[in-house]
Amino acid sequence: MEIISADELESIHEASLDLLERIGINFLLPEARDILAAAGADVEKDGMRVRFDRELVMSHIARIPSEFTLHARNPEHSLIFGGNTINFSAVGSPPNWSDLTSGRQPGTYDAYCDFLRLTQSTNIAQLVAGHCVEPMNIETPVRHLDATMAMIELTDKIFRIYSLGRQRTLDVLAMVRILFGINESELADKARVFTMINSNSPLQYDIPMLWGMIELARCKQPVMITPFTLAGAMAPVTLAGALNLQNAEALAGLAFVQMVGPGTPMMYGGFTSNVDMKSGSPAFGTPEYVKATLIGGQLARRYGVPYRSSNVNASNAPDAQATYESQMSIWASVLAHANFVHHGLGWLEGGLCASFEKFIIDAEMLQGMAEVLRPVSVTAADLAVDAIEAVGPGGHFFGSPHTMERYETAFYQPMLSDWRNFESWQENGALDATQRAHRIYRQLLKSYEQPPLDAAIKEELDTFIARRKQEGGAPMQ
Amino acid sequence: MEIISADELESIHEASLDLLERIGINFLLPEARDILAAAGADVEKDGMRVRFDRELVMSHIARIPSEFTLHARNPEHSLIFGGNTINFSAVGSPPNWSDLTSGRQPGTYDAYCDFLRLTQSTNIAQLVAGHCVEPMNIETPVRHLDATMAMIELTDKIFRIYSLGRQRTLDVLAMVRILFGINESELADKARVFTMINSNSPLQYDIPMLWGMIELARCKQPVMITPFTLAGAMAPVTLAGALNLQNAEALAGLAFVQMVGPGTPMMYGGFTSNVDMKSGSPAFGTPEYVKATLIGGQLARRYGVPYRSSNVNASNAPDAQATYESQMSIWASVLAHANFVHHGLGWLEGGLCASFEKFIIDAEMLQGMAEVLRPVSVTAADLAVDAIEAVGPGGHFFGSPHTMERYETAFYQPMLSDWRNFESWQENGALDATQRAHRIYRQLLKSYEQPPLDAAIKEELDTFIARRKQEGGAPMQ
Repeated sequence: MEIISADELESIHEASLDLLERIGINFLLPEARDILAAAGADVEKDGMRVRFDRELVMSHIARIPSEFTLHARNPEHSLIFGGNTINFSAVGSPPNWSDLTSGRQPGTYDAYCDFLRLTQSTNIAQLVAGHCVEPMNIETPVRHLDATMAMIELTDKIFRIYSLGRQRTLDVLAMVRILFGINESELADKARVFTMINSNSPLQYDIPMLWGMIELARCKQPVMITPFTLAGAMAPVTLAGALNLQNAEALAGLAFVQMVGPGTPMMYGGFTSNVDMKSGSPAFGTPEYVKATLIGGQLARRYGVPYRSSNVNASNAPDAQATYESQMSIWASVLAHANFVHHGLGWLEGGLCASFEKFIIDAEMLQGMAEVLRPVSVTAADLAVDAIEAVGPGGHFFGSPHTMERYETAFYQPMLSDWRNFESWQENGALDATQRAHRIYRQLLKSYEQPPLDAAIKEELDTFIARRKQEGGAPMQ
Repeated sequence: MEIISADELESIHEASLDLLERIGINFLLPEARDILAAAGADVEKDGMRVRFDRELVMSHIARIPSEFTLHARNPEHSLIFGGNTINFSAVGSPPNWSDLTSGRQPGTYDAYCDFLRLTQSTNIAQLVAGHCVEPMNIETPVRHLDATMAMIELTDKIFRIYSLGRQRTLDVLAMVRILFGINESELADKARVFTMINSNSPLQYDIPMLWGMIELARCKQPVMITPFTLAGAMAPVTLAGALNLQNAEALAGLAFVQMVGPGTPMMYGGFTSNVDMKSGSPAFGTPEYVKATLIGGQLARRYGVPYRSSNVNASNAPDAQATYESQMSIWASVLAHANFVHHGLGWLEGGLCASFEKFIIDAEMLQGMAEVLRPVSVTAADLAVDAIEAVGPGGHFFGSPHTMERYETAFYQPMLSDWRNFESWQENGALDATQRAHRIYRQLLKSYEQPPLDAAIKEELDTFIARRKQEGGAPMQ
């Protein structure tokens, strides 16, 4: 779906290249500036600003694969990013969690593990794109070790490395090698883990993010670049201006990673939204977010790079607002041809809270959307002319052979929606969808089964973690 | 958006014409069969079945205007149906109403009037497409008189005639003539009122509906044909089969009306959904509903007839389920290029209940969608290159001149969404969106202003109603 014309798209593209050429981007890490200078970018003497010729940018962007596969430890959970695929991840990084009985609580390791169990148990939660809630009760120098081990043990799906300093990145890469039983050079053969990079809008990349980009590019693991360009705050108040800035930052990040590791799989991320001009709070799932997501998709296709979007909302409760803002985000993502929808399940409160009930509401919405994307069959048997003739005027199709042969699989069966009549629903406690979601998540946790992990691998990982903890873990940068 | 190929669309078209040619449709009204026979249809001797040559059907369909204007008594509320327009109506015909404080109650005249007041006060509620809730406490022979008078007095928007028997239709047409100060022949000059026709699927049109079609076609007032083809119940369990039946019934109804009044404005209505195969309850806003709505749009475009869809859900509460099912319906309607979305505001419980809170939730969702449909501006000023240069890396745009010149109108301002942070939201009572919707609807009713109505017209309408009541009102058929 193209909501701006090819000419308008080109004018954003040209304006972004102009920004990169004339104004440039601050790269805060000296090692990154050295790489950029060696590749031919114009690095400011005694400064952090880097300017890019448009040919330099575009020649590096051209090296990005249009499609790649991320390999999970369980091959059934490996995923293709690019082309006509769309993948959904659980929410990443909220500092709080909530459910109907506990209310809103600071993130803990236990809550984090429960979200991982739900992710493992839910088909449409296809990967773990970060800490579903931050395990705040684990000290930061060692949090990445325990949190990664939980992702590995409680799920067998793809997971993410946070770019929060070089040592943390190296530690998790070491754990990935242990998990897959491979050495450093073998790591680059296949994509097995990924990172997500936010520029510090406007026009900056900070040191931890740059180390993440460098270390993952060195071993050819996928890097997703997502400028967080909030129109009216870190970006211009106009949608075209915010997208111009998003695009300039994204192109710089994409090109930089290709300078480090040519051919490294990447994604173009769009996260442009608007602020509430009254309070300054970020808003999500707004009409502006829908349009920015659609235009972001047009830009990603312009560059032939897989596209990442998000399922987001700004509601403080898992209510109607959370739901309609999420639906706006989901439809925008699908219509934008996004290949990866981050925060697919559980995001609330503009990302400040992971909600267990919202996780289930999202699962239902995403399963429904997946069903929408399944093609309609229009064979002669489907057209049912004989069945209609047999039933005739004023009849009904409940017991007809055409129905009986198909009814068990004819329609999408929801997990959360309650279609009983009002009286039956009332007799069963008149639970609204959020209350039913609470019951469903509790039940899913009860029936959770931990995926098997080879005992030798687990031992090696435990030994590695124990050693790294003894060494004091990792600093932030 | 075309989700089935041109060939697949043609195969539905051909199968429908085959149904009409070989199997035919029952027309229960003798006068209708006489009209059909005179127009060249094959009417069964001593029976109700009518079969149609495909050329006969298509030659009549070709007479339907691709676009028409419905004139409201306030010209500002006149609406165009067709082309790129999309119009939303309040919910029609539920027997119950609900709000958070009263729960679910049988429909009353007072509740009906409150919904009319909300419709008048809400911009995105563009027309009154029936009784927002049935005024069950008014006796049926005179209900159409009082209910129509309420639509006329409490709103100055377009309203609907129910096809519930010939005399009722004629009574309301008489009221329309009084309202606009016109005689019978002048009525046919412009479209000023409309009716909606449901076939009795499968393959039947009943007597009250046929009288409505005949009387409105005689004075060239718009007729919307909407087969209610529930896959697995009154229609085949396959989507293609249900759409085949929908299309056959719609084509028969469209052609019949054109036989009575060539050039009468019409709409092609799609209402195909699926039943819950466990309970037999109808389901709405499902993935199947989305696909049926999209394909219905393809069919309407195939015939060059404006398209009607609906904003529907099957939830028993104005909760997350009501919201995501509605969003599925709204997005499907927009992507199907619907010109009219019936039940746009307030529908709950598969149409059995009108919810005041849902009315407000829907208003927010539809306003947001209208904003999505507004084009994005991509001028040089919008691209904001100078503003980005002035702010520079690491700055912010809050106080920049580019922002200050635009911030008041830059973004969609929601009515219901609360974007404050969690702490502010909690201090203000932690109201969820449905609770806030309750407050908003109460406030809208308080600030409602009745539109002026010429005293002489009001007196003439009152006199007409008094006379018709004295005469005993109207029978059902």
